[in-house]
Amino acid sequence: MQFSPLINRLIEDLRCLPGVGPKSAQRMAFHLLEHNREAAKRLAETLLEAAEKIGHCQSCRTLTETTLCSVCASAKRDASKLCIVETPADVNAIEQATDYNGLYFVLMGHLSPLDGIGPQEIGMELLEERVKNGTIDEVILATNPTVEGEATAHYISEIVKEYGIKSTRIAHGVPVGGELEYVDGGTLSHAFSGRREL
Amino acid sequence: MQFSPLINRLIEDLRCLPGVGPKSAQRMAFHLLEHNREAAKRLAETLLEAAEKIGHCQSCRTLTETTLCSVCASAKRDASKLCIVETPADVNAIEQATDYNGLYFVLMGHLSPLDGIGPQEIGMELLEERVKNGTIDEVILATNPTVEGEATAHYISEIVKEYGIKSTRIAHGVPVGGELEYVDGGTLSHAFSGRREL
Repeated sequence: MQFSPLINRLIEDLRCLPGVGPKSAQRMAFHLLEHNREAAKRLAETLLEAAEKIGHCQSCRTLTETTLCSVCASAKRDASKLCIVETPADVNAIEQATDYNGLYFVLMGHLSPLDGIGPQEIGMELLEERVKNGTIDEVILATNPTVEGEATAHYISEIVKEYGIKSTRIAHGVPVGGELEYVDGGTLSHAFSGRREL
Repeated sequence: MQFSPLINRLIEDLRCLPGVGPKSAQRMAFHLLEHNREAAKRLAETLLEAAEKIGHCQSCRTLTETTLCSVCASAKRDASKLCIVETPADVNAIEQATDYNGLYFVLMGHLSPLDGIGPQEIGMELLEERVKNGTIDEVILATNPTVEGEATAHYISEIVKEYGIKSTRIAHGVPVGGELEYVDGGTLSHAFSGRREL
């Protein structure tokens, strides 16, 4: 036996959420049905509204329901710096941890030819237009320190170079608070080659 | 900074799901927006439909969108046995693991006076009616082996006794496949007092 058809469908549909398997989905379904139908309805309405209305910022490609995101729309940001990241969550992480005051460009992924993700999918046309405009004098490459992230950073730095603009890469090295003993070899090697004079 | 208002609302609303904190909610929101808007819409529609249509089985109180659940509606079940459980998920667990062929009664909780859950909230009126009808000759108490579950089982057995019907409690003891060394004292003591002749 299983549950009634509609409950089964609810459990099945909840599994579209990342990290939710059959047991969690069942727990979520019963929790909502038994204790919190109002929240379930609210969630449903927000999901529909978000799926309809949220698009990409016309300037930086981050997810937003407005034409320009709040960072791009702000007059207080330094338009001479452009930080390239892979996801909207990366923008948030940088905003919360650093005092960076420039603008962003969100690739919404990284180059991955085998998955059919080429320059067009990560918005290289829009990026070239922005670089061409001439207000930018530094492009900060903050893609992830993975193979694909490095390749993407390298690819973008080549484009940026053509326009005579400086491109920098965020530093890779030993995480603050970490212990050398437990840091992996690749990171340690990066930390050595990237050493700076005190 | 945070994200755009609608994305923030989506993240906030996803947190109504049990076991979902701020980081998981953010990950879910971006996963749906970036990769799977169709699934998000489908989930939203199912949530709305479920919150509207799913009620309780008129006979056993389990969650279902029909008047009677599939077990209560089946003519093949043995109407002389009634198994009392706390949740619809318990019904499913018993159906999958045992060859029990009787009917169920789902309390949708357990007695918990401090939380305002008394006999009425766990459907004692409906249960008394069913017991009164006279088709039942055994009530199997399968509430959880917790303090509240035991108290609820005891309370129900007293009611059932008034109508001269046998009530039984599922066995508590060492879980199959477990090791004695790691079994807690209460369970071990139950296992001893419930020993049977071979």
